[in-house]
Amino acid sequence: MRTIAIFGVGLIGGSFALALRKAGFTGRILGVSSPDTIRRALELNVIDAGVPAEDAARSADLIYLSQPILRIIESLAELSQWIQPGSLVTDAGSTKSLIVEQAASLFAPGQFLGGHPMAGRERRGVEAAEADLFRGRPYVLTPQPRTQVENPTAREFESWIRKIGAVPIVLDAAEHDRIVAFTSHLPQLASTALAALLEGRPEPASGVFGPALVDSTRLALSSFDIWGDILATNRGPILEALRNYVAKLEEFCNDFEPAAIERQFERAAKFAASLRNTG
Amino acid sequence: MRTIAIFGVGLIGGSFALALRKAGFTGRILGVSSPDTIRRALELNVIDAGVPAEDAARSADLIYLSQPILRIIESLAELSQWIQPGSLVTDAGSTKSLIVEQAASLFAPGQFLGGHPMAGRERRGVEAAEADLFRGRPYVLTPQPRTQVENPTAREFESWIRKIGAVPIVLDAAEHDRIVAFTSHLPQLASTALAALLEGRPEPASGVFGPALVDSTRLALSSFDIWGDILATNRGPILEALRNYVAKLEEFCNDFEPAAIERQFERAAKFAASLRNTG
Repeated sequence: MRTIAIFGVGLIGGSFALALRKAGFTGRILGVSSPDTIRRALELNVIDAGVPAEDAARSADLIYLSQPILRIIESLAELSQWIQPGSLVTDAGSTKSLIVEQAASLFAPGQFLGGHPMAGRERRGVEAAEADLFRGRPYVLTPQPRTQVENPTAREFESWIRKIGAVPIVLDAAEHDRIVAFTSHLPQLASTALAALLEGRPEPASGVFGPALVDSTRLALSSFDIWGDILATNRGPILEALRNYVAKLEEFCNDFEPAAIERQFERAAKFAASLRNTG
Repeated sequence: MRTIAIFGVGLIGGSFALALRKAGFTGRILGVSSPDTIRRALELNVIDAGVPAEDAARSADLIYLSQPILRIIESLAELSQWIQPGSLVTDAGSTKSLIVEQAASLFAPGQFLGGHPMAGRERRGVEAAEADLFRGRPYVLTPQPRTQVENPTAREFESWIRKIGAVPIVLDAAEHDRIVAFTSHLPQLASTALAALLEGRPEPASGVFGPALVDSTRLALSSFDIWGDILATNRGPILEALRNYVAKLEEFCNDFEPAAIERQFERAAKFAASLRNTG
């Protein structure tokens, strides 16, 4: 890979650029973003140049789409007119089924590889980008079986994922979406629901709360700018996860006896500890 | 106050002792705990001496009960035999109605003042104690109207609460319990329920999760040793809080449309931001 074009130079796209540089990438990194973002990305030495989308698509070996999900889906249609044979389009969208489906209808087999780096920060934008954002974090890849043809750029891309310290995990797109509905979208909605409930209630106004409430509502600060697309493109699995969570809470209500609740605490602590051992 | 006896020299009791010292308390601080805890508390210079409960109760101006809730209730009965006129018993239990009720049946008016410092750490035990634990945190006091007689020790105790940097908030015991059901017990159970749900599911085993899941299950590590007593002594308000949370999640499920969910995100973000401005 000699030239990489990053569409959407925010936290994820900017961090990918910085991570590549730190890992020894010596080719050119182009940015496709708003003029203001390009200016800041250039000031921060995140990209080498800002270029129009068509120029980027025609000249890059790897096109990295780190935009909001619905914007990625729009970009795919544009790119399909311009992309050169042998180059690879990948994305960093948080849901995969719709993106992979759209890509399959537009690109030649092997020309698209869906991805989802499981990394993030509270702060957003290129200013929050950091070279170590992906280190030790899962990086899901969702190749489509029927397009798993020999593509040297895809192999090279996967080797860069390892070089930036991320852990590639290959999954079917639908399987990915179902997993993240439980492991990412449900925690977000659990926090949002807690904060939305309390917003309408008198109790917190007393000022009587501890650090636990502050922690529990941290995710509730998340912007709907990002989450709107995620929720709209993973509706079925998210509703299943929400209904399972409601059922679990009803178990608590219906059997609020010390022995039963103690078993729930034990299961919960076992799970929470296991995340910390493997995560 | 010349002599303070701390029953249960753990995170809270130990931190109260260290905080008093830092704030300039020059009297004697006695500890009533297991021999092992007393040894460690002495090593860490948290207390001046470990003494039997009866000796502590007979000699202290202020008796500070920082034990588990049900143990506090037991201690109250013991203390009522030994306590001297003019001295004050207070506690740091996380629920107040049962404790205050028990104390009212045992002590002379003005001899007991319920308290709940809204501070904590993940680590427990006297080793985790720190002088600044209460700084900037609410410290709820639950005087009973009928016992609000003139007690110089109570006034002095409240002035020490301010000196250690905490913010006294006076509440009725039942009101306190209802508030913390929503602001403390519900966040705990929301995290426990999320982790207990995921413990039985295949999705997290894939390793596909981000920092959000780790954060969301931090409270799920909490020990049932502490929570068993809290849940057992605040059952009604907690069930009400849980049922309100279930109803809010069902709102999400029943109206999972972008505009409705966006309104929930906005309310949630507004609430989460307000906590961070005032907390």
